[in-house]
Amino acid sequence: MYIALLVRGRDRPGLLRDVAQRIAGLGGNIVFALSYAEEGRASSLFIVDFPSEPWGAEEVLLRVEGVEEVDVERGEKAYSLYAEFLERYPAMTTELVKLLDPADFLEVLIRLAPDKRAPVYMLMPPDYLARLLLRAPPELTEEACRVLPSEKLAEAASTLPPDDAVDLLQSMPPHARRAVLSRLPGGFVEKIRPLLRYPPESAGGIMTTEVVVVKQGSRVADAVELLKKSRGEVRDVLYVVDDAGRLVGYVTVPDLFKEDRDRPIESIMRRDVVSVKPTVDREEVARLMVRHDLSRVPVVDDEGRLLGVVLIEDVVDVLVAEYSEDMLLLGGIARLPRFRYLTARVSTLFYRRFLWLAVIYLIESVTATVIKGFESLIAQSAILAAFIPLLLDTGGNVGSQAATLITRALALGEVTAGDVLRIVAKEIAVALLLALAMGGMAFGFALALTSLNLRVALAVATALVTVVVTADLVGAMLPLAASLVGADPAAMSAPLITTVADVSGVFMYFVIAQLFLRG
Amino acid sequence: MYIALLVRGRDRPGLLRDVAQRIAGLGGNIVFALSYAEEGRASSLFIVDFPSEPWGAEEVLLRVEGVEEVDVERGEKAYSLYAEFLERYPAMTTELVKLLDPADFLEVLIRLAPDKRAPVYMLMPPDYLARLLLRAPPELTEEACRVLPSEKLAEAASTLPPDDAVDLLQSMPPHARRAVLSRLPGGFVEKIRPLLRYPPESAGGIMTTEVVVVKQGSRVADAVELLKKSRGEVRDVLYVVDDAGRLVGYVTVPDLFKEDRDRPIESIMRRDVVSVKPTVDREEVARLMVRHDLSRVPVVDDEGRLLGVVLIEDVVDVLVAEYSEDMLLLGGIARLPRFRYLTARVSTLFYRRFLWLAVIYLIESVTATVIKGFESLIAQSAILAAFIPLLLDTGGNVGSQAATLITRALALGEVTAGDVLRIVAKEIAVALLLALAMGGMAFGFALALTSLNLRVALAVATALVTVVVTADLVGAMLPLAASLVGADPAAMSAPLITTVADVSGVFMYFVIAQLFLRG
Repeated sequence: MYIALLVRGRDRPGLLRDVAQRIAGLGGNIVFALSYAEEGRASSLFIVDFPSEPWGAEEVLLRVEGVEEVDVERGEKAYSLYAEFLERYPAMTTELVKLLDPADFLEVLIRLAPDKRAPVYMLMPPDYLARLLLRAPPELTEEACRVLPSEKLAEAASTLPPDDAVDLLQSMPPHARRAVLSRLPGGFVEKIRPLLRYPPESAGGIMTTEVVVVKQGSRVADAVELLKKSRGEVRDVLYVVDDAGRLVGYVTVPDLFKEDRDRPIESIMRRDVVSVKPTVDREEVARLMVRHDLSRVPVVDDEGRLLGVVLIEDVVDVLVAEYSEDMLLLGGIARLPRFRYLTARVSTLFYRRFLWLAVIYLIESVTATVIKGFESLIAQSAILAAFIPLLLDTGGNVGSQAATLITRALALGEVTAGDVLRIVAKEIAVALLLALAMGGMAFGFALALTSLNLRVALAVATALVTVVVTADLVGAMLPLAASLVGADPAAMSAPLITTVADVSGVFMYFVIAQLFLRG
Repeated sequence: MYIALLVRGRDRPGLLRDVAQRIAGLGGNIVFALSYAEEGRASSLFIVDFPSEPWGAEEVLLRVEGVEEVDVERGEKAYSLYAEFLERYPAMTTELVKLLDPADFLEVLIRLAPDKRAPVYMLMPPDYLARLLLRAPPELTEEACRVLPSEKLAEAASTLPPDDAVDLLQSMPPHARRAVLSRLPGGFVEKIRPLLRYPPESAGGIMTTEVVVVKQGSRVADAVELLKKSRGEVRDVLYVVDDAGRLVGYVTVPDLFKEDRDRPIESIMRRDVVSVKPTVDREEVARLMVRHDLSRVPVVDDEGRLLGVVLIEDVVDVLVAEYSEDMLLLGGIARLPRFRYLTARVSTLFYRRFLWLAVIYLIESVTATVIKGFESLIAQSAILAAFIPLLLDTGGNVGSQAATLITRALALGEVTAGDVLRIVAKEIAVALLLALAMGGMAFGFALALTSLNLRVALAVATALVTVVVTADLVGAMLPLAASLVGADPAAMSAPLITTVADVSGVFMYFVIAQLFLRG
């Protein structure tokens, strides 16, 4: 188990040696050490391979003369430590690539100051760089494309399987992509050209072409030979095609194993293939695979010819990406592919958030105009103003709850637009129960706050009942309406629903208050 | 492709025959038909296997004499149709199980009235029932346990692989679980007992034990023999253990294929095994596998003995479940495992939503008390009330945005509590930009609405700047604080943050307004 130990203290001759001795005494094998001294203080980073959890390492090291601070970090917590040392010693990159896999190194890179990243990219081996960029947020990919020569990027891309290489290319800015494409080896370009046709969000965009394909009419022995020679990604299933390349069935590798080598492949293949078209949305493919417990889904064209295979391993990435995007959207932040908070520019964050806030602000400003219309009523009974936030917040929360329930059910494919009547019936029942319960609470609270002003209390309670029922139905219906017209239900996010509920809420409140107070 | 055709019209002799003829004319093969007549009107459901999309089927069938309504549904849209017919003819179950897989039948069942479901459970074959209940929401599982004899449930459970059988048992109410366990065959209980020890949310709870295990010292030929005999879930990898059952390496099946049958297994096995302990949270396992692109992770006990393997296929289910729960929590609805909107009881929905709303209401009611304290100020300048919703809504939205960004980054493992300083720095920068931009808009709008009342406009703009900065920092810090103390950051949901922002918002607004208007 690799553990990062950071030791800081007063610099003195032999400090490093003493610390190293103690680490060895704890049973640790130092695989990397880096130290620097500054103004009489020394900082040392040790990456140590311990056979088991080094309990008490901190106490042992603090007993070394001069040591003032010891930090023992494992896993994710060590990323910031590595970044701190990498900032001073970019050459540490060549050591870190041996110890961390690209996903972990990416975390370190994200925590490094932007102006210190260039040498790190330079020092990475091409295949490592490629696997790291494949997971990088857009800011890092752009940066790497800016600071690295296209030859190095092309060399990196060509180490990837074709489908991943296409993903990497598609994540690059257009001019960099063209430069890299023109520098890729000809044979490799041939392999990736068909994949470049499909958008990254489609089945064609996430499928792999590294599949073992057997011609109809082959024997088991031929299939075994093909499999032995293959270096593709999918090696647990073989697909069987006819002379025109049309998919006719598949054989699992363990099944192949059990059969006589002379049997024709058709006699052992399975024909129950579920396939998709390359243009199908990747989210739909993910849903299909999850629902039917499929781990591989072949992609075929309109003539039924096999183009590639979508793997469950890649669908997991799709699910994580969609999850991340839906959450952002629900929180009122526009979709950002491969968004990473730590590297996102302040200007990007500002821009994405401001646009949404400004739109909501403009809609919400209607409330101010509505309230202004009741200025004389408020001047007369100022206490009415006290209940505005309470009423609107409750309405907004009820609306968001309903919207969340429906958006989630739509996202998971649990309900379809065809279930509208069932949903309306259920929401009306729940909304009425909530309205009565919340209305009762509001009545009691308003009576207490106004020292038993019955009219105000009745107005507040009646308004709350109206607001809760309206907000619930609006919250449930907006995502359904979005899904009916083919828009993303998550776009009908809580902030938008709250705002719609607010505008109708203040209006209903003051109309009701006027009725009760002037009646 | 199976398509459901619903034909309704005036009942007459020969109607069914005529419709069937037209369907055959369209090239369709009727696999199932069911009709009933009521008050002179006939309704018929046909499930038809078409070789390709039956364009124009609707028009053709409408031309049959007496037919008044034709509904052509495929896939998910046909669920409600099936439910309608199943309600009258539960015996249709035996046909539907041949046409639909359990995941699809579950969708039909969910749309069926609760009191009509009992005969459907009865008519399902045990293995089908088991696979359906494995995916069912809690209401349906409870219902099935109530209406079915424990013998039938035990028979169903014993058709599943041990890890799935345990999931099914753990989803049953305790008394039903005990009854079913006591009726399971002894050999089967032996297999599942070790799995029952781990909670469903842990690595041990989602692992499979159906793994091919080879002893150290075996030859390739022995491994091949073992594989041929195996019927387990994992058949693309073999795990190698020593005499004490400790995991030492693994061999992929394609690798096995390529080797000489007499080579010792150690000489071809890989030793770079990443393993987890059975008590690790399943979400953490999912994250590990996604990050490192692993499709199988062995589970070992403290001595390193192989207990089972977590498959990427099962991790996909974990991701979907966690996604669903996080979304509910963000929307202010308490966690509900295997929650399904369509079957959830109105009382459950009410209760889960009301608890949360009531808590928020109590916190939010502080705003009313605060505003009441400024009653005389409002009586004097009633226009101040007009800006309350605008200010609070903007504050709430800014707070939710910040909370969403941080919650999402924490959920995806992109940031850890150790990144607090980076996050604070970034949020302060973004919040200041947003505050200035929104403050400018508010100043202009308030000037316009108050016919150039500069004092009110300045008060509103200043309050907005203060509210935006405060709300942003509160929104970002609450999920971080939750994660630092080990709570779920998603529990710091948007509604809660909005409420906290509201209470501080009204207070700051009226204090600032008082300064500007009395100053």
